[in-house]
Amino acid sequence: MRETTILRLKDVSLEDPIMIEGLPGVGHVGKLVAEHMIEELKAEKIMEIYSPHFPPQVLVQGDGTVKQVRNEIYACPGSDGRPDLLILVGDYQSATNEGHYELTGIFLDIAEEFSVRRIYTLGGYGTGQFVYNPQVLGATNSLDLVEEMKGYGVVFHENEPGGGIIGVSGLLVGLGRLRGIDAVCLMGTTSGYLVDPKSAHAVLKVLSTALKIEVDMQALEDRAKEMERIVGKLQEMERAQMPFEGGGEEDLRYIG
Amino acid sequence: MRETTILRLKDVSLEDPIMIEGLPGVGHVGKLVAEHMIEELKAEKIMEIYSPHFPPQVLVQGDGTVKQVRNEIYACPGSDGRPDLLILVGDYQSATNEGHYELTGIFLDIAEEFSVRRIYTLGGYGTGQFVYNPQVLGATNSLDLVEEMKGYGVVFHENEPGGGIIGVSGLLVGLGRLRGIDAVCLMGTTSGYLVDPKSAHAVLKVLSTALKIEVDMQALEDRAKEMERIVGKLQEMERAQMPFEGGGEEDLRYIG
Amino acid sequence: MRETTILRLKDVSLEDPIMIEGLPGVGHVGKLVAEHMIEELKAEKIMEIYSPHFPPQVLVQGDGTVKQVRNEIYACPGSDGRPDLLILVGDYQSATNEGHYELTGIFLDIAEEFSVRRIYTLGGYGTGQFVYNPQVLGATNSLDLVEEMKGYGVVFHENEPGGGIIGVSGLLVGLGRLRGIDAVCLMGTTSGYLVDPKSAHAVLKVLSTALKIEVDMQALEDRAKEMERIVGKLQEMERAQMPFEGGGEEDLRYIG
Amino acid sequence: MRETTILRLKDVSLEDPIMIEGLPGVGHVGKLVAEHMIEELKAEKIMEIYSPHFPPQVLVQGDGTVKQVRNEIYACPGSDGRPDLLILVGDYQSATNEGHYELTGIFLDIAEEFSVRRIYTLGGYGTGQFVYNPQVLGATNSLDLVEEMKGYGVVFHENEPGGGIIGVSGLLVGLGRLRGIDAVCLMGTTSGYLVDPKSAHAVLKVLSTALKIEVDMQALEDRAKEMERIVGKLQEMERAQMPFEGGGEEDLRYIG
Repeated sequence: MRETTILRLKDVSLEDPIMIEGLPGVGHVGKLVAEHMIEELKAEKIMEIYSPHFPPQVLVQGDGTVKQVRNEIYACPGSDGRPDLLILVGDYQSATNEGHYELTGIFLDIAEEFSVRRIYTLGGYGTGQFVYNPQVLGATNSLDLVEEMKGYGVVFHENEPGGGIIGVSGLLVGLGRLRGIDAVCLMGTTSGYLVDPKSAHAVLKVLSTALKIEVDMQALEDRAKEMERIVGKLQEMERAQMPFEGGGEEDLRYIG
Repeated sequence: MRETTILRLKDVSLEDPIMIEGLPGVGHVGKLVAEHMIEELKAEKIMEIYSPHFPPQVLVQGDGTVKQVRNEIYACPGSDGRPDLLILVGDYQSATNEGHYELTGIFLDIAEEFSVRRIYTLGGYGTGQFVYNPQVLGATNSLDLVEEMKGYGVVFHENEPGGGIIGVSGLLVGLGRLRGIDAVCLMGTTSGYLVDPKSAHAVLKVLSTALKIEVDMQALEDRAKEMERIVGKLQEMERAQMPFEGGGEEDLRYIG
Repeated sequence: MRETTILRLKDVSLEDPIMIEGLPGVGHVGKLVAEHMIEELKAEKIMEIYSPHFPPQVLVQGDGTVKQVRNEIYACPGSDGRPDLLILVGDYQSATNEGHYELTGIFLDIAEEFSVRRIYTLGGYGTGQFVYNPQVLGATNSLDLVEEMKGYGVVFHENEPGGGIIGVSGLLVGLGRLRGIDAVCLMGTTSGYLVDPKSAHAVLKVLSTALKIEVDMQALEDRAKEMERIVGKLQEMERAQMPFEGGGEEDLRYIG
Repeated sequence: MRETTILRLKDVSLEDPIMIEGLPGVGHVGKLVAEHMIEELKAEKIMEIYSPHFPPQVLVQGDGTVKQVRNEIYACPGSDGRPDLLILVGDYQSATNEGHYELTGIFLDIAEEFSVRRIYTLGGYGTGQFVYNPQVLGATNSLDLVEEMKGYGVVFHENEPGGGIIGVSGLLVGLGRLRGIDAVCLMGTTSGYLVDPKSAHAVLKVLSTALKIEVDMQALEDRAKEMERIVGKLQEMERAQMPFEGGGEEDLRYIG
């Protein structure tokens, strides 16, 4: 596999859908919100995206089988005024700069294929301190969207985040403009040190209002605890890494 | 050489062979088992694989000639109920993430060319502590294989290895599923600090049972000692690296 | 987006223009001079250049909208003996070695398209100490240009900068020679620790003399202060980076 | 420039020439020998090789003009029994692993174009200690060559260098074998900390014997002193590097 590959699992027909991106990032806020929505709205997986820009890794699942790391797209047809949705989630973002650009291009191709009329990218905004009352910061690719978002309680601070937005959440908004697709990045403030269900709750509340949908938020905290457990394991593994590291590139470079 | 290149040394005809991968990794367990099998079963080299994703390096052999670093595939026709085998070994795994994906794709192309019906990838699972009685952990790409492997004494711990499996051993299983090829990763527990013949012994025992073959294990310990000596030399060289380092990229970047 | 992409905003016809490059670098001297000229001469943006070799990032602007990081080319028709100008500025230089070569090639293609007759690349030359009276060091791609530049007060020290010139400022001069385009690199000495309006002033003075143009220098210091504020924010953000870093590649590599 | 590019300066006709490689490396031994031979034999430059795998850099020369970093090939027709020679020198080796493979492939293409019958690659072998009487270690791509080289005083230690040979000096020998070109790597032992004319002297002596040529060695020490001065300057520059580093990739990543 030398190229990013899309595995199409199901054909669906959607009407002017909204795309929601929740890939891993600060406080896992975006991932938590997007995976919660997939569960609560019973969205259906329609695509798997494999790429040499992801780490060369499989995850071992509870039943002893492995899962090749990937990104996934779920579809959820609307009802009762709720719009059709495409939800983008995954195990990782690209491990290379160029991969971020390539994958974002592929996601925007998919958005165009489905005539997506708006993209929401979700993430956390790390403050380095415990956050009692998470806010939702916004950044958009049009002035109209700034005004609309303010109506949902989204906060805009001048030139904040000062360091810009890195990764797919930023690029979908920035490169989306070049394709004429409206896009908004919603960032829940969070300490950044833990998977943060309170920050996710704040982002989900704004998103529900904007989409005019109802999502039960009860399960959000349990889901955060489970995710924390998995992230903790991954980090523990990393700390325990051995000198002959089973395929990791640095470790193998000079071992014959 | 800008592309990965396969040098075909010999045409062989095999019937539904099993592929065994034993590239360098944790405790050199997989490499030790695979090279031992090649010796004991008198397998014959049929392919050499050269790639710009390997380190830009030659190894100096005992007779003063060099060996360009590479991966190799050996064939071993079956007999007395022993299945035909393809054994993949080598000096290094890829030095880049993308290379792991590309090379795994090439190995799977070869597997398809030979109608390989199952892949065993072999490795070590570093625990960071001395291991008195090595276990063999498993991960597969189908539930049926989990059950079958348990019958051979393979252990499956929920979500373990927690950090997933990195490198070719993982990707052959994960990407193998997308090609419809059954695959199992067998990992012998090991401290991870030394070339570990006891862990290799445990893995080889499981593999022999699964393949219904007999391999003399006497020479395994001597082979481990020789490998330890070579690995030690490579590490010693690394520690002794000079400021003007003979072609290593970091060292040359700013020296005219 | 897998390839560097030029977005052409406006067709302009220029006569044998001079190209001026002022991308970010030491003391932000080049960027400061080039952006100042764009403002003072009311140059008009004619191209935006997007590339997967730039960081995968958007900047958040004062109004809540984002700006995809990019390079830009401005045009300024001449008058009263002032030559036509093409001015190259941007948020970043390439984040990869290969990208520096690719982007320089693209800039030289543009130079050839407009029959550019000379390129000035602008930068700072960090001394590590406070510089009371900035000098302007030069490096060119022909001996004639060395003589001409000395006439404008440019200083040439034997084999200085000793480490050569890294990035687009150097490559435009070095690779420009292979295309037969005259090119000069002007470097204002600066401590290197701060955005340096005094060094920019010295460079602009030389450039104005060489181009026989007049540029008001009053606003240069205010512009430097504003740039210092933004650079400071970016650095502050960097220091405050969280463990789950919102898309940055290192941070995501082993977090599922 | 996205691809490695060969600039051909002159057509020459050579008969079964010998290729000599002396790119920068440990103790600059190979570079010193090769450049000395170019001077003493009055070899003529026939090719310049530019590549995006070299650092994105120009060097500033004594007269104020720049030199785009590159590799170069010189030709020297034989006489009085001295064979025709092709000599490969340069400012840098590749800055990437893949680049080492690509450039070696290009050098071997050139060798085939000229029907090169043997390649000598020259380098230093760092011992980390002051070397009173430098030896010349060898590594070849055929057993016959080992025997021949022993006749010239070349030393072969079992499995030494233990870490193998990294960079173009190794790859020309290793990949040369795959093209059927005889190749030898000659490594002068050296502390590795300084440009080492004594080690270069030892290598040149072996090479002169092997090639049946005479090269005056008087100027070797002066040349080493001049090279030491330049290398020292480059290192000094590196130590003095500023936070806003003029185009270096790391420094610019998060500075807007």
